[in-house]
Amino acid sequence: MPANFRSDNENPVAPEIMEALTRANEGTAYSYGDDAITERVKDRFCEVFETDLEVFPLVSGTAANALAVAQTTPPYGAVICHQDSHLHTDECGAPEFYSGGAKLLTLAGASGKLEPKSVRERIAEAGYVGDHASKPCLLSLTQATEFGTVYSVEEVGELAQVAHEAGLAVHMDGARFANALCSLGCSAAEMTWRSGVDLLSFGATKNGAMMAEALLVFDADDAGELGRRRKQAGHLISKMRYVSAQLDAYLADDLWLELAAHANRMATRLAEGLEDAQDVELVYPVHGNEIFVRMEEGFAECLRDDGFEFYGWPGRPGLYRLVTAHCTAESEVDEFLDAIQALDGD
Amino acid sequence: MPANFRSDNENPVAPEIMEALTRANEGTAYSYGDDAITERVKDRFCEVFETDLEVFPLVSGTAANALAVAQTTPPYGAVICHQDSHLHTDECGAPEFYSGGAKLLTLAGASGKLEPKSVRERIAEAGYVGDHASKPCLLSLTQATEFGTVYSVEEVGELAQVAHEAGLAVHMDGARFANALCSLGCSAAEMTWRSGVDLLSFGATKNGAMMAEALLVFDADDAGELGRRRKQAGHLISKMRYVSAQLDAYLADDLWLELAAHANRMATRLAEGLEDAQDVELVYPVHGNEIFVRMEEGFAECLRDDGFEFYGWPGRPGLYRLVTAHCTAESEVDEFLDAIQALDGD
Amino acid sequence: MPANFRSDNENPVAPEIMEALTRANEGTAYSYGDDAITERVKDRFCEVFETDLEVFPLVSGTAANALAVAQTTPPYGAVICHQDSHLHTDECGAPEFYSGGAKLLTLAGASGKLEPKSVRERIAEAGYVGDHASKPCLLSLTQATEFGTVYSVEEVGELAQVAHEAGLAVHMDGARFANALCSLGCSAAEMTWRSGVDLLSFGATKNGAMMAEALLVFDADDAGELGRRRKQAGHLISKMRYVSAQLDAYLADDLWLELAAHANRMATRLAEGLEDAQDVELVYPVHGNEIFVRMEEGFAECLRDDGFEFYGWPGRPGLYRLVTAHCTAESEVDEFLDAIQALDGD
Amino acid sequence: MPANFRSDNENPVAPEIMEALTRANEGTAYSYGDDAITERVKDRFCEVFETDLEVFPLVSGTAANALAVAQTTPPYGAVICHQDSHLHTDECGAPEFYSGGAKLLTLAGASGKLEPKSVRERIAEAGYVGDHASKPCLLSLTQATEFGTVYSVEEVGELAQVAHEAGLAVHMDGARFANALCSLGCSAAEMTWRSGVDLLSFGATKNGAMMAEALLVFDADDAGELGRRRKQAGHLISKMRYVSAQLDAYLADDLWLELAAHANRMATRLAEGLEDAQDVELVYPVHGNEIFVRMEEGFAECLRDDGFEFYGWPGRPGLYRLVTAHCTAESEVDEFLDAIQALDGD
Repeated sequence: MPANFRSDNENPVAPEIMEALTRANEGTAYSYGDDAITERVKDRFCEVFETDLEVFPLVSGTAANALAVAQTTPPYGAVICHQDSHLHTDECGAPEFYSGGAKLLTLAGASGKLEPKSVRERIAEAGYVGDHASKPCLLSLTQATEFGTVYSVEEVGELAQVAHEAGLAVHMDGARFANALCSLGCSAAEMTWRSGVDLLSFGATKNGAMMAEALLVFDADDAGELGRRRKQAGHLISKMRYVSAQLDAYLADDLWLELAAHANRMATRLAEGLEDAQDVELVYPVHGNEIFVRMEEGFAECLRDDGFEFYGWPGRPGLYRLVTAHCTAESEVDEFLDAIQALDGD
Repeated sequence: MPANFRSDNENPVAPEIMEALTRANEGTAYSYGDDAITERVKDRFCEVFETDLEVFPLVSGTAANALAVAQTTPPYGAVICHQDSHLHTDECGAPEFYSGGAKLLTLAGASGKLEPKSVRERIAEAGYVGDHASKPCLLSLTQATEFGTVYSVEEVGELAQVAHEAGLAVHMDGARFANALCSLGCSAAEMTWRSGVDLLSFGATKNGAMMAEALLVFDADDAGELGRRRKQAGHLISKMRYVSAQLDAYLADDLWLELAAHANRMATRLAEGLEDAQDVELVYPVHGNEIFVRMEEGFAECLRDDGFEFYGWPGRPGLYRLVTAHCTAESEVDEFLDAIQALDGD
Repeated sequence: MPANFRSDNENPVAPEIMEALTRANEGTAYSYGDDAITERVKDRFCEVFETDLEVFPLVSGTAANALAVAQTTPPYGAVICHQDSHLHTDECGAPEFYSGGAKLLTLAGASGKLEPKSVRERIAEAGYVGDHASKPCLLSLTQATEFGTVYSVEEVGELAQVAHEAGLAVHMDGARFANALCSLGCSAAEMTWRSGVDLLSFGATKNGAMMAEALLVFDADDAGELGRRRKQAGHLISKMRYVSAQLDAYLADDLWLELAAHANRMATRLAEGLEDAQDVELVYPVHGNEIFVRMEEGFAECLRDDGFEFYGWPGRPGLYRLVTAHCTAESEVDEFLDAIQALDGD
Repeated sequence: MPANFRSDNENPVAPEIMEALTRANEGTAYSYGDDAITERVKDRFCEVFETDLEVFPLVSGTAANALAVAQTTPPYGAVICHQDSHLHTDECGAPEFYSGGAKLLTLAGASGKLEPKSVRERIAEAGYVGDHASKPCLLSLTQATEFGTVYSVEEVGELAQVAHEAGLAVHMDGARFANALCSLGCSAAEMTWRSGVDLLSFGATKNGAMMAEALLVFDADDAGELGRRRKQAGHLISKMRYVSAQLDAYLADDLWLELAAHANRMATRLAEGLEDAQDVELVYPVHGNEIFVRMEEGFAECLRDDGFEFYGWPGRPGLYRLVTAHCTAESEVDEFLDAIQALDGD
């Protein structure tokens, strides 16, 4: 069957995680997160991130991001983010809703990345009119970005410094955190709190979980009453053990890194194969598991007629996204490249 | 092992539902609810409720309730509900948050049930001061109630009529919908839209699912943009097929009714056994799977020392709740009754 | 012309305040509160209250109350207040809206007053279910209460102590602050911050201003970003000097106390006159400028036929409110008493 | 005394309006807008706009704009507006707060004006991702714009048509409505509802009132429960007669048009005088009472040293705004031009 590169959300759950759910389904357990598995997940996160952090298991990345905004940004506050960030373009106003009226101040930036200079200027601009402007309270980075690129550790650090100097907190939207981490080859701590990140939306769903994300808060002092915010938003899952079991298996034995490394390898293989194609142009550097290409619409249609699936970027005719996943087979990549080759240059 | 009667949320997932999750974990599927299982679930609900309704699968009852409020009640609106309703006491202000400021107008009422007279008077009262008062827009009933009692079909109909005559919509919080339905022995349609219910929070988690609920809207005209509200609240699950698979198995072959009927039978058995106990007083009629008893705190402690688990009602010393579930064994009930008997009358 | 006792909001502006507006209407002045009159008003408040407080001039008491709630109570928080408080019954959900979803926990209490015992119990109750309940963050007292009664300094202090011990802030809704103060004969400081009040909605409109209120925050540390909240709510008046000019004249030369003392004297005269009437029963102690009476509806109609105006309390047939004001004439009171006497005992 | 061109908000109230306030200060009047003056104001607006509209008197333009957004745009909705609009840059997130989370989608456009093409494209773009994007519900135009320019009747009509075709309502922020109207010389009806405007923030404060604005809704069906929204926001003024008296005098005998025409004439005189200056560059066409100029900062400082006051545009060094008002004297303009001439070309 021809490959589906449309979205990592369309892929199945990794077998190890399904097994963990089955294992968790024994006997009774305290509800609302007071169970032993949730406790263990917290320990795992502390170990992986090498610090004593706070963990809020969740079932949706939108919830993780929106809670991070609400926790740091009052109604009269503002979030600085990229104009193409998921936070701004794909969450139907969740940050504005959760915060009760905060404003997203969006910036352009090459390859989906924010730049320290424009962040600094935007913060300054907001300051010119005093109480008449929403107050910048949070800088939100996406790692990997909406265009599949990855900030280096230095880039994260520099942006965080700009934010902190102006009194803003720093949030990382890590819907594809594992892919970014594997791309950099650094530690989870280095890519986050050691570089100045205060809150992390840690994604697992796209990388093999069923529905499991977590909002991590690196300084426990910043986590006050986040539990109540989660409850009020309807995101305190009653049978929490089944969310935590996913995260538990995900983090055990470096499964998460293996899954992401595989997806990244498949993306690299795909990107390398596409470099030779005349009719397909790589648009952004391929750092993780996403590849953005420019193709004639007719060319894309031919590929779809062959059964391949990928995503036409909304509002940008000719721009397509290919996403590889933890379960993408090498043969699927190769079959796609063969199909490209067969059509290419005609 | 001595039984745990603390909460139906502490029980495991029914095997049929675990198996459905495993079956769903094959190949790719459209995300965000565009998959075939979600489509099938919609058909099942239409069949069960004998009408062409709208279904919004969710993972939390709080979200279902709060979305129902937001959909019907503007910020300047009010919800009429029981003073002991979950909506008011246990959701950390989710209805107020989702609606952007609606007010809950709470009423007393025997056994956790609202009464038509007091509802009518409360609506009238709100009308006396015009724009100075929040406008009643929704009547929310809980079926089964927080105290385990069940409204008769006639009672639901009478309350709904009072609401509709005054222009309010009617919501039913059905966290334990199946238990109530089995108790009444009527059809799902009779207990809801045929009696005037407009929106239903249909619970499955407490009755054997992992995390699966649904907000049902009986008139499609009332469902406009609920999809966007769900997304904005972070409750549009990306790998939706895994929520829908739970609901699919739950509704198939009357599994949901079997599970609830069993839980109710166990509650009846337990309640009947308790009637003879001198030291345990049944407080409310037992209609579904919840039993409220009054015991001396010392007596309760002895039972806990024996390993039994149950819930001390917050703020009411001496009031305890026992909940049976789809997986409660007859032997567990009997063992508990034996323990009572051994302690009783000392 | 027969007197109008319906509401102090129906009365005209005191001449001294009209003159101050005319005086303020000279030349240009900085907008949005950076003018000299606003600066002077701040000094006057500091002097009157004998402390270095923060002042936010406003044009509506609802805004003052709602901003006080928003400043102290997050969306997941709760406000404890009397079930008959204006905050709960007459502001169309402004506290819920401004806070983004906080809940009002209402308590009964004789003569419109909260009692320390029930406040303490309500706070405890909210604590029983942890994150499932909105967190009490604010105690709001009304001084004078909705029924015209006045808390003694000791009563305020005792309630504030209960609140503070549990970590709640204390707000006083002083829509009729001056009337209460004159009634007690204590200092403004004693009735507020020295007794534990943290935020005060200081009303002037009902006592002779045109539209002028102020939110006072006694500890500057509690006032952070209240300016932005005020702006975001649309309550930062551009030509602020005209709000401040009212407050300036109101506070100058004890005008505010004179106006309130007069209104109170008229209420006392009226109440004393009513004590003899057989058909008119005084319902609450008369402490300030409001009198609540019980009369037959037919009796009330006769008075209205004579041209007198007063307020039938919503939802309580037979209960009427009479309000005296800064401009009520002794002759108006006496004429009304004469009319009562003429009808009485028939 | 050298002129103050900083803001029309810094100017005093027109004498006719002060007199109207004094006249209104007689006897008692129903509160909260049930008085005779408020009734008369409604009639005046209907006459001026030649239609049977709904009027909501207010004291702040931010409130008028934010209520217009809340009335038309749900939390999951979006407002399309200019990136330099007051709505986006100067109201501290009031639209987001009032709507409970709506998003402002901002567009560039020459001279502060939106362009039909980019509006159409932005609406289309929002549609590409379905429920994942906030739904455009309102187009907000500013007339006159933030840069003092004025849309022609045809331009308003064309933009409104684009909006209506896509199901959006049309709002006009008319903080300087009278100046725009005098500039076009058309009727108030032509510039608004006859061109497709659904809601108008009608400003009076900047043009000679003390604190008086009004939200006008041209189709009464669109005004449902706006009264409750106003109350919940704390903007239902208790002694409403004093807001209405301002609007009453403002609209009587074309006072509002006279005041604006004068301000515009002064701006024209000023702009014409500046055309000859070498060191001062006019940046935008001068249509109403605002003039934007580019000057060296040193040059501006010299003018300030002479005592003149004007506004340095935030974040744009070298850009200055000069605003004339209803009370600007010809001699003030000439004196300023003389000062420019004295400094110019050095």
